[in-house]
Amino acid sequence: MKRPSWRIPIFSRKAPLSPLPPGASPGTLTAPADASPPRITVLAYDAEQMVEEELDDPAAISDYLESWPVSWINIDGLGDTTVVEQVGSVFGIHPLALEDVLNIRHRPKIEEYDEHIFVVTRMAGFDDQFEPEQVSLFLSSNYVLTFQERQGDCLEPVRNRLRTKKGKIRQRGPDYLAYAVLDAVVDGYFPVLEQMSERLEELEDEILRNPKTETVARIQGARHEMLTLRRSVAPQREIFNSMVRDGHDVIGEEVGVYLRDTQDHVIRIVEIAESYREVASGLMDLYMSSVSNRMNDIMKVLTIMATMFIPLTFVAGIYGMNFDPDVSPFNMPELRWFWGYPFALGLMVVMTVGLLVYFRRKGWIGS
Amino acid sequence: MKRPSWRIPIFSRKAPLSPLPPGASPGTLTAPADASPPRITVLAYDAEQMVEEELDDPAAISDYLESWPVSWINIDGLGDTTVVEQVGSVFGIHPLALEDVLNIRHRPKIEEYDEHIFVVTRMAGFDDQFEPEQVSLFLSSNYVLTFQERQGDCLEPVRNRLRTKKGKIRQRGPDYLAYAVLDAVVDGYFPVLEQMSERLEELEDEILRNPKTETVARIQGARHEMLTLRRSVAPQREIFNSMVRDGHDVIGEEVGVYLRDTQDHVIRIVEIAESYREVASGLMDLYMSSVSNRMNDIMKVLTIMATMFIPLTFVAGIYGMNFDPDVSPFNMPELRWFWGYPFALGLMVVMTVGLLVYFRRKGWIGS
Amino acid sequence: MKRPSWRIPIFSRKAPLSPLPPGASPGTLTAPADASPPRITVLAYDAEQMVEEELDDPAAISDYLESWPVSWINIDGLGDTTVVEQVGSVFGIHPLALEDVLNIRHRPKIEEYDEHIFVVTRMAGFDDQFEPEQVSLFLSSNYVLTFQERQGDCLEPVRNRLRTKKGKIRQRGPDYLAYAVLDAVVDGYFPVLEQMSERLEELEDEILRNPKTETVARIQGARHEMLTLRRSVAPQREIFNSMVRDGHDVIGEEVGVYLRDTQDHVIRIVEIAESYREVASGLMDLYMSSVSNRMNDIMKVLTIMATMFIPLTFVAGIYGMNFDPDVSPFNMPELRWFWGYPFALGLMVVMTVGLLVYFRRKGWIGS
Amino acid sequence: MKRPSWRIPIFSRKAPLSPLPPGASPGTLTAPADASPPRITVLAYDAEQMVEEELDDPAAISDYLESWPVSWINIDGLGDTTVVEQVGSVFGIHPLALEDVLNIRHRPKIEEYDEHIFVVTRMAGFDDQFEPEQVSLFLSSNYVLTFQERQGDCLEPVRNRLRTKKGKIRQRGPDYLAYAVLDAVVDGYFPVLEQMSERLEELEDEILRNPKTETVARIQGARHEMLTLRRSVAPQREIFNSMVRDGHDVIGEEVGVYLRDTQDHVIRIVEIAESYREVASGLMDLYMSSVSNRMNDIMKVLTIMATMFIPLTFVAGIYGMNFDPDVSPFNMPELRWFWGYPFALGLMVVMTVGLLVYFRRKGWIGS
Amino acid sequence: MKRPSWRIPIFSRKAPLSPLPPGASPGTLTAPADASPPRITVLAYDAEQMVEEELDDPAAISDYLESWPVSWINIDGLGDTTVVEQVGSVFGIHPLALEDVLNIRHRPKIEEYDEHIFVVTRMAGFDDQFEPEQVSLFLSSNYVLTFQERQGDCLEPVRNRLRTKKGKIRQRGPDYLAYAVLDAVVDGYFPVLEQMSERLEELEDEILRNPKTETVARIQGARHEMLTLRRSVAPQREIFNSMVRDGHDVIGEEVGVYLRDTQDHVIRIVEIAESYREVASGLMDLYMSSVSNRMNDIMKVLTIMATMFIPLTFVAGIYGMNFDPDVSPFNMPELRWFWGYPFALGLMVVMTVGLLVYFRRKGWIGS
Repeated sequence: MKRPSWRIPIFSRKAPLSPLPPGASPGTLTAPADASPPRITVLAYDAEQMVEEELDDPAAISDYLESWPVSWINIDGLGDTTVVEQVGSVFGIHPLALEDVLNIRHRPKIEEYDEHIFVVTRMAGFDDQFEPEQVSLFLSSNYVLTFQERQGDCLEPVRNRLRTKKGKIRQRGPDYLAYAVLDAVVDGYFPVLEQMSERLEELEDEILRNPKTETVARIQGARHEMLTLRRSVAPQREIFNSMVRDGHDVIGEEVGVYLRDTQDHVIRIVEIAESYREVASGLMDLYMSSVSNRMNDIMKVLTIMATMFIPLTFVAGIYGMNFDPDVSPFNMPELRWFWGYPFALGLMVVMTVGLLVYFRRKGWIGS
Repeated sequence: MKRPSWRIPIFSRKAPLSPLPPGASPGTLTAPADASPPRITVLAYDAEQMVEEELDDPAAISDYLESWPVSWINIDGLGDTTVVEQVGSVFGIHPLALEDVLNIRHRPKIEEYDEHIFVVTRMAGFDDQFEPEQVSLFLSSNYVLTFQERQGDCLEPVRNRLRTKKGKIRQRGPDYLAYAVLDAVVDGYFPVLEQMSERLEELEDEILRNPKTETVARIQGARHEMLTLRRSVAPQREIFNSMVRDGHDVIGEEVGVYLRDTQDHVIRIVEIAESYREVASGLMDLYMSSVSNRMNDIMKVLTIMATMFIPLTFVAGIYGMNFDPDVSPFNMPELRWFWGYPFALGLMVVMTVGLLVYFRRKGWIGS
Repeated sequence: MKRPSWRIPIFSRKAPLSPLPPGASPGTLTAPADASPPRITVLAYDAEQMVEEELDDPAAISDYLESWPVSWINIDGLGDTTVVEQVGSVFGIHPLALEDVLNIRHRPKIEEYDEHIFVVTRMAGFDDQFEPEQVSLFLSSNYVLTFQERQGDCLEPVRNRLRTKKGKIRQRGPDYLAYAVLDAVVDGYFPVLEQMSERLEELEDEILRNPKTETVARIQGARHEMLTLRRSVAPQREIFNSMVRDGHDVIGEEVGVYLRDTQDHVIRIVEIAESYREVASGLMDLYMSSVSNRMNDIMKVLTIMATMFIPLTFVAGIYGMNFDPDVSPFNMPELRWFWGYPFALGLMVVMTVGLLVYFRRKGWIGS
Repeated sequence: MKRPSWRIPIFSRKAPLSPLPPGASPGTLTAPADASPPRITVLAYDAEQMVEEELDDPAAISDYLESWPVSWINIDGLGDTTVVEQVGSVFGIHPLALEDVLNIRHRPKIEEYDEHIFVVTRMAGFDDQFEPEQVSLFLSSNYVLTFQERQGDCLEPVRNRLRTKKGKIRQRGPDYLAYAVLDAVVDGYFPVLEQMSERLEELEDEILRNPKTETVARIQGARHEMLTLRRSVAPQREIFNSMVRDGHDVIGEEVGVYLRDTQDHVIRIVEIAESYREVASGLMDLYMSSVSNRMNDIMKVLTIMATMFIPLTFVAGIYGMNFDPDVSPFNMPELRWFWGYPFALGLMVVMTVGLLVYFRRKGWIGS
Repeated sequence: MKRPSWRIPIFSRKAPLSPLPPGASPGTLTAPADASPPRITVLAYDAEQMVEEELDDPAAISDYLESWPVSWINIDGLGDTTVVEQVGSVFGIHPLALEDVLNIRHRPKIEEYDEHIFVVTRMAGFDDQFEPEQVSLFLSSNYVLTFQERQGDCLEPVRNRLRTKKGKIRQRGPDYLAYAVLDAVVDGYFPVLEQMSERLEELEDEILRNPKTETVARIQGARHEMLTLRRSVAPQREIFNSMVRDGHDVIGEEVGVYLRDTQDHVIRIVEIAESYREVASGLMDLYMSSVSNRMNDIMKVLTIMATMFIPLTFVAGIYGMNFDPDVSPFNMPELRWFWGYPFALGLMVVMTVGLLVYFRRKGWIGS
């Protein structure tokens, strides 16, 4: 049975925190749990032409690399270590980098190897809960190689721009393609933030209408999610920083201005996430206040009722005493007064009116 | 129906968080939602003369640029991307910069291009709620170009100084004009802070007089607003920093001392905003204390009333028992005492006085 | 009517947040609201002789500058912009610096001009509430010029040291005099901190004896004051830093060791202020605990009284029922028992004792 | 008797905070309390062969150092200072380093000596509570020397890789061995974090089902443990930093990429620990809310019961009064009405229904 | 009367915050309040011999300085400014340094003078409350001069090492002696931390057994003390930093490794103090939870009692009504039923059992 989304996000659910047992040999490849089998697609193009194909055999990739100026090889699904290893050997990838590709909880980072730049980043996913998906990207002078955890991504618009020759993307090299991919990954966080803001609004409504313990857990969940999102995005800033500043061979100068633009987006996303976290913290205060106001309401009703009737009941109790009026003129002569009962009722009415006035002055009952 | 201003500020209300869908081609221009149509005004001058005109056709701008040493072109309203694009081509603006102009949620920043400096800043607006308006400014050796989201701004005093030759502004170049604009933008935050301080005072009154859940939401709103204001202002510091320090060609040295002065104002605004946020946090504590004191008051009334009457009612209950005095001298002989009823009433008075003394010692009832 | 000092400190009370309306020409001089008229005093000296005079005409200052190696010109009161402007022209002060002198909410700072060093600092004042007073100081090779908001300051001991030739102050130049002034300003914070510590002690007493909502406002006020004090002092550290390190022409090397000593004091004041703020935050917790303990006390009394008498009243109610003992031997035969009434009273005593034992075990009533 | 694990972790339990009394001569060796006697094992190998032996006499170590290219000497147990001193003299270890080896509460650090690099690190242990174990490692050009507090460690997989020639470990020098050991130590934190996440989940269940004061102590314990864990791991980052960057003689360049990989793991562990601490803080809020909701529930039941029955009892009290209907037609004529009793009961039913409707509107009783 | 130790630590109690009134001449010497008269002891030695004497006349010190390679002059008590001045003139101490010696609230710092290094540090004292004592140390090439506030210190073990020739201390110069003194000062904080941990444990017990408002004040006190301790220790780190790194003439290189070792201790003490502060903050949460659980307990008892007896009392009230059964068959016929009274009692038992079952389901009464 699925755990409700507002419960503590347990990191170890989807995959163990570390892919390898402590002390294992570095570079050992283990597929993540529940990973789907890899699907390899190639998208090779120059300014004039483009092919788009799905491959069964990783070895076939080399042909594209040789014949086209820019090839984008995308692997969806990390379920088969053999295929990943074959791809790794086609592109000459370091075993530790391959291990990072399969370790789907890696922190976004950039590393430079002789042949290519290796970028690990996280794509936003939101299905009831924020679920980032790791994207590993290798950029060289004639290819972009991307690994994704599962099928379905936010890169379709980039593919469409390639297919339709829209924008400058077909005239540019793999560095611009890598920018387009990373930019799409970053911008994919905006819709998640929009959904998040709706959720916060719903939470606020819930607090004001009907606060319950579950609500607190949901607020905590939202705060935690913002933290996770921030941790997914913030390190990407350094990726762009390094790409712009460190002058990698495979990144042309004219791509720098675009990377800086994406970096601005990263900063904005981090700021919005921070801001939403503040809002969520504020909701906690709102909740506490809402709950204690409800308590006050309850207590007020009890106090008004009890305070009104307790003296009345006392008066009734007085005249329910059995002192014998026969033995003494002082023993409850009221019982035999002509206006005795009306007098008692009148006394009660006076007391009630007095208390009502008092409560109204206190502001406990409506004006 | 308008959402009450103290509810969570939902960022996505006025405009989406990002102007473009993820994966869109960079430099695509989209007008913000609800944007008004652009109105172009030119204000060209030298120390002696000045013209001020409204233009229909962006192409006409070039004439002013050629004939006057300093031209200030201002565009109010971003609702027509064609006009913005035409203006962009007149001044040779990079597509990404134009995208930033239209992305009205951009973080304040400064960027240097070959021809001009590009500054994005945020002007304070306060209409029940703090609503910043984005101002984009391009500064070159012979013009200042500004884009604003909508008509109405805090720059009228600058225009008046130009019109009346007041101060040194007419003798100086576009760098001084840009300073005057940015300075007016920064100083425009002071009135907002004054309004804010009044609002905080009102909130404090409300807390002490009549705290309710809504009040908490309002306090949260005020805190959030201070955070937003701080985020609008703080990055402007780096803009002035960069203008003073980086030695841009188009900024003369003698303007530096003025820019430093404005930077001082930015720092003060940030400090005041921080300080107001502290005050707002303190109001939360005040609220919690006010609410729990009210609860204490309610409980005190209940306790005093209940504690006073419960023993009295008990005594009345005792003498309301029906034990038959006839069958035994021990069965409620008080009922037939001559002073039975006065004795019972006296007992009650003694108990009441005792409890009143006790409550007074506890400090629960006024001295 | 004066606002009670524990209410929110509204910055805009004494003076507007900014002296000039947004967009005003820089260097425009406006006297602060309620400023007293200026009083000019000169104190000129060498190792042998000293004159001390009050001037009516700013122009007369020049004579002293020419005839004495060290002149200290002090202006109390900023209420007349003409006088301030005249003084400014005697000393050749930049218009923006003069604007800062009149903007009595300026952040402490140091600025170097060609002729002199310009220091803005804040003097501690404490009259029921911490009220800093701005001191502007100009230091050149033969004079020290100080502006103060109002008469009365903590510099009298410095004047006395000059008058009595005490210490080395008469043998030294204006740099040592400036040090002496700034040192006196810094050390003036210590008595304020002492008063503050007394106030915190009083607050603690109030919390333990008689906590009320007002107390919370006072705690907030104290915290806020510590923050304000910290913000007045902390930036002074950089002033001394700059004076020691930046090698200004007008500051001799041998004054450096004294300035470092004052810097130590600044650090200590900031630390104590921080520490007091911590104490004030702790008082908030103490308050909350004190209030909730009072609530517990109230509830305990209510619970004990109600729990004791409710069963007793029930027993009395039982024997107040009117079942007819005549129709059945089961109908309340107790009413006709010989020991019926004593039995009922005994039952009540047993119940009372049982509950007392229970409450004592719970620790609700004293051992 | 063992202290329950959720109580405050008292540092001084296992060992005093400092091994030496204040003022003792530096380099004095004292065995930790309860330390087990040392057990020396040697594991010497080249690419072809390997020996693994347990030694009784520290002097015998020298033989291995001379005959094998790589020797790993491991000492489990610090209970005998003589043995530690002998080992120290075999390897020429500085007395202060030996003191650090025996001071089992040392902060992770790296120090360079002429002959070897000295690393102090902490191995994760988790037995109901997080209990780190200090590992001291000396790395030279032909040996790795490790000291551990007690037997049993997470290094068995490393030994197995050596035994089975798995991976590159047998072809490499002692620097790679040291990396393998430190990597195993770091990765040993992941299982602890997994256990921790389970514990947090259990705590959450407990809070929602049955919150008690003990739960708070357990939450505190979890937060504290995360802090301790973070402090054990975070300084290790600098160890790897220094090993990669400072170019120690005994560390080959090709090991750098592996060390960087381990450094990534350290960063991730610190992030997860931080994140768990956040979760634990959130649990505190959940707890407070859960407790106050329970209180609300209790109050609601009391209020509903009291408010329902108090008016009813009052009505019953009215008709229990003893006014004499004989003396006046106004004296409780209801008592003799034909429908008197049904009328009274009907009145009570009407009141009850009215209150039930009121409570339902308030949402206090289920729809 | 002594103020209880858990009240706010008022800094100004023992001594004013600043030794001098604002504006006083720098270098003015004032003895701290309640200071004891100075006692001068000399301990002079070389590797072979040692003398230890108490001096009456500061002038006699010079003899030792001339005849012995290392002299340690220690002054306990700062009550006589004349003696301090005489000592100052023997060693050529700067007036500001002497002022710092007498200002017993000085922040730990190091300053280099031509002749000697001047170190101000704080020795841990713990007598019910943490009370640091200022130690001022002057280190030159042939002497160590220390000033302490009062007699009794943690340096006796160092003296004993000198007396017994234990360790290397007698072979080394004054730099090693200074290290030994400073190391003993630092290590003197460990016992204080142990006592602190015991106090925290006691506080925890008190919270769980019997939380009262005083407890909160004690927790605050503990937190504050940890802060004070941290502030006493943390700046000492920079002292050792400077001694190691800045290459002072009077400190030999071989002492560096020892100083680094002490620096490690400083870091650990700061970490432990931080960690204890966290624990103290956690105790606050524990307290709040303990108090609100107690409140819940009280409310539960009240609710159970009230809810149980209110309906019963109502039933008794019903049958206490005086409707006349003679006038109508509908008027309380139960009163004349044969089983009327048993029926009423039975009804009450049924209601009681029903409520008990309800409470048990709610978990309010033990299973």
